[in-house]
Amino acid sequence: MTMKPFTELTDRETAIKLIMDNVKPIKRVEAVPLDEVAGRVLAADVVAGFDVPPFDRASMDGYAVKALDTSGATGDTPVRLKIIGVQHTGELYEGEVGGGEALEIATGSPMPKGSDAVVMVEDTALEGDVVVVYKELKAGRNMAPAGEDMKRGDHVLSRGAVLTPGMVGALAALGYAEVEVYEKPRVAIYSSGPEIVPQGTPLRPGQIYDVNSYTLAAVIESNGGAPVKRGIMLDDVESVEAAIMDAADHDMGVFSGGSSVGVKDLFGEVMERLGDVFFHGVRVKPGKPTLFGTVGGTPIFGMPGYPTSCLNNSYVFLAPAVRLLARLPPREARVLRLSMGHRMASRSDREQFITVRVEEGKAYRVFKQSGDITSMTHADGYIVLPVGVSVVEEGEEIEVTLLY
Amino acid sequence: MTMKPFTELTDRETAIKLIMDNVKPIKRVEAVPLDEVAGRVLAADVVAGFDVPPFDRASMDGYAVKALDTSGATGDTPVRLKIIGVQHTGELYEGEVGGGEALEIATGSPMPKGSDAVVMVEDTALEGDVVVVYKELKAGRNMAPAGEDMKRGDHVLSRGAVLTPGMVGALAALGYAEVEVYEKPRVAIYSSGPEIVPQGTPLRPGQIYDVNSYTLAAVIESNGGAPVKRGIMLDDVESVEAAIMDAADHDMGVFSGGSSVGVKDLFGEVMERLGDVFFHGVRVKPGKPTLFGTVGGTPIFGMPGYPTSCLNNSYVFLAPAVRLLARLPPREARVLRLSMGHRMASRSDREQFITVRVEEGKAYRVFKQSGDITSMTHADGYIVLPVGVSVVEEGEEIEVTLLY
Repeated sequence: MTMKPFTELTDRETAIKLIMDNVKPIKRVEAVPLDEVAGRVLAADVVAGFDVPPFDRASMDGYAVKALDTSGATGDTPVRLKIIGVQHTGELYEGEVGGGEALEIATGSPMPKGSDAVVMVEDTALEGDVVVVYKELKAGRNMAPAGEDMKRGDHVLSRGAVLTPGMVGALAALGYAEVEVYEKPRVAIYSSGPEIVPQGTPLRPGQIYDVNSYTLAAVIESNGGAPVKRGIMLDDVESVEAAIMDAADHDMGVFSGGSSVGVKDLFGEVMERLGDVFFHGVRVKPGKPTLFGTVGGTPIFGMPGYPTSCLNNSYVFLAPAVRLLARLPPREARVLRLSMGHRMASRSDREQFITVRVEEGKAYRVFKQSGDITSMTHADGYIVLPVGVSVVEEGEEIEVTLLY
Repeated sequence: MTMKPFTELTDRETAIKLIMDNVKPIKRVEAVPLDEVAGRVLAADVVAGFDVPPFDRASMDGYAVKALDTSGATGDTPVRLKIIGVQHTGELYEGEVGGGEALEIATGSPMPKGSDAVVMVEDTALEGDVVVVYKELKAGRNMAPAGEDMKRGDHVLSRGAVLTPGMVGALAALGYAEVEVYEKPRVAIYSSGPEIVPQGTPLRPGQIYDVNSYTLAAVIESNGGAPVKRGIMLDDVESVEAAIMDAADHDMGVFSGGSSVGVKDLFGEVMERLGDVFFHGVRVKPGKPTLFGTVGGTPIFGMPGYPTSCLNNSYVFLAPAVRLLARLPPREARVLRLSMGHRMASRSDREQFITVRVEEGKAYRVFKQSGDITSMTHADGYIVLPVGVSVVEEGEEIEVTLLY
């Protein structure tokens, strides 16, 4: 493994491949209460331990009967059955339904012995303790057999499933109080730069507030990771080494601001020494000074310091890596074919991500410099200009990839 | 307000209109740490309190100079400037850049007095304490003026915005440590039915596990609500009254299992007495026994007891109501035009929601009874058969609304 010098830029697809080849899905699992498992990734196959429902049950409100007793029943020629009691829901009726008899029953109640169908209450009338049945039934009518939903031994869910409400429902029906899921990977976040100040402290001249640790945390969280903010890293060798070793103790580490080729840039150097650097510098604009490597197998990102570049590249490079780590499927890109609302020219020798607002079916550039977070704040999506393309004409058809 | 008898079913669109007309967006606000605001709804406009960046800054690594001093500089005819020191990031350089002078500067650092441009380090060479400049610059080059991103007084974000990572970034840049957002509405959930048993207890004959409170909680949570599980409601007048009054103390109440027309059904009766019932019974299959009303202004849903009916109707009726309550925009339906993988016949006098799996571009019915949660567990989406349509032919083009 040799380091690519920063001057030799890696194209986006190669960079993504290098990342995805070096991120391993998380292996640690944890038991999570059923109430909190929606959206989590199942860590083991689920096989039904018993029939659901566990008993034959009525699927309508009415009377449990022997179907044969209703032979020939019509509105004009009803049959009359003796009501012998009520099947209370949640209990088993002790007796048995005999010939000429009916037992009052509600939807969901277990079918009493001797019965094989339910007459809907709508098809009956009451005469004291006699029910008048106006409709002939076949055996099995208006009831559901035990195991209709899931049979004991059925393979219900597979390891790796991202749990939907419907899957949570199946786990609930099988009596799970908690479920083994994969842990959310812990992604450590570090800001850097002596000008960076935490929110809540007043700014002194030359200082600015930390932006990247917040946008990174939001992107990491919405892609299945557990962001762990590790503060602001100082710009000396010892601090950078310590921070990188600290990151290596997490499932992934993300640094911002430390990968620009400034005179004080140490991050790439130290990464090179402590681990493997797979690329340093990508052929995209904004966001060239992006680094990816591993230390002791832990993937480490060095993101640009500029808030827009950092956030843009966190969508392009970091989010897919976090999803792979968290075992979530790749996010499906939502792409709109729109026309450009105005002529736009932007020259670069790199692939360009241009943020746009969408208004009345047209795309308008959110015109800001790459340092400006508001170019992301007010964007609905972005268009990608390949290397060599520097102009989009007004009315030209373009593809907008939506951010959300 | 008079109650619609259950036998007079309300169609879906009317039901949704009645719900949306009677749900009021939440008014309570809370201050939430910046780290946790992504996805939340902003409760007040945000106006920039100061310029961002707060100072003119370098946007490249290099040397701060007077642009005029670089006049005529080329690769063959460089100009030489005296390096007077280093502008440390995060501080203000005390002195001033004079004619023929240069100050070393890194990206993001404040521009020192007297300078009006930055020579990129790539366009220079070093000769001791002299920098050789190979390129002519205009004033303002490679630097960004104070307020370029946001100017003091700029309207940055509007009340009601759902906070994206890019918006969180803007709030961070403005120094917010916490943000006023709307509270997540508290939605109380009640199961009912004497046969319902909590997970973790062994089933006795006739009993089943509680499914609906889990699927409802998952749907409520993923639509911006805070589910509050209030347990299993008993089937007597006092318990039903107490539960409904308890629900009225929340922002919304959702009951399941109590709105079927069983002999023991009390829910509709008590709702009628304590508040207003807007409909009871909808013309959809599954999920007919659905009720909506208000008690003391609090919206109350009575959902079907069958897990599939309950979950299906929670997507159709409950989720839009929770989103409105939470001030989230309606979820955009994701609809695929596919062809049906097999002939399918299903007769009903109600609008039918048929759950389907999608495989290789074709839709296949997840064939289960309406009581079976696995018909939702294994579904990718559903097709809607209008009243009067009972057959879809193999290969017929249909619209599948994706569940997730």
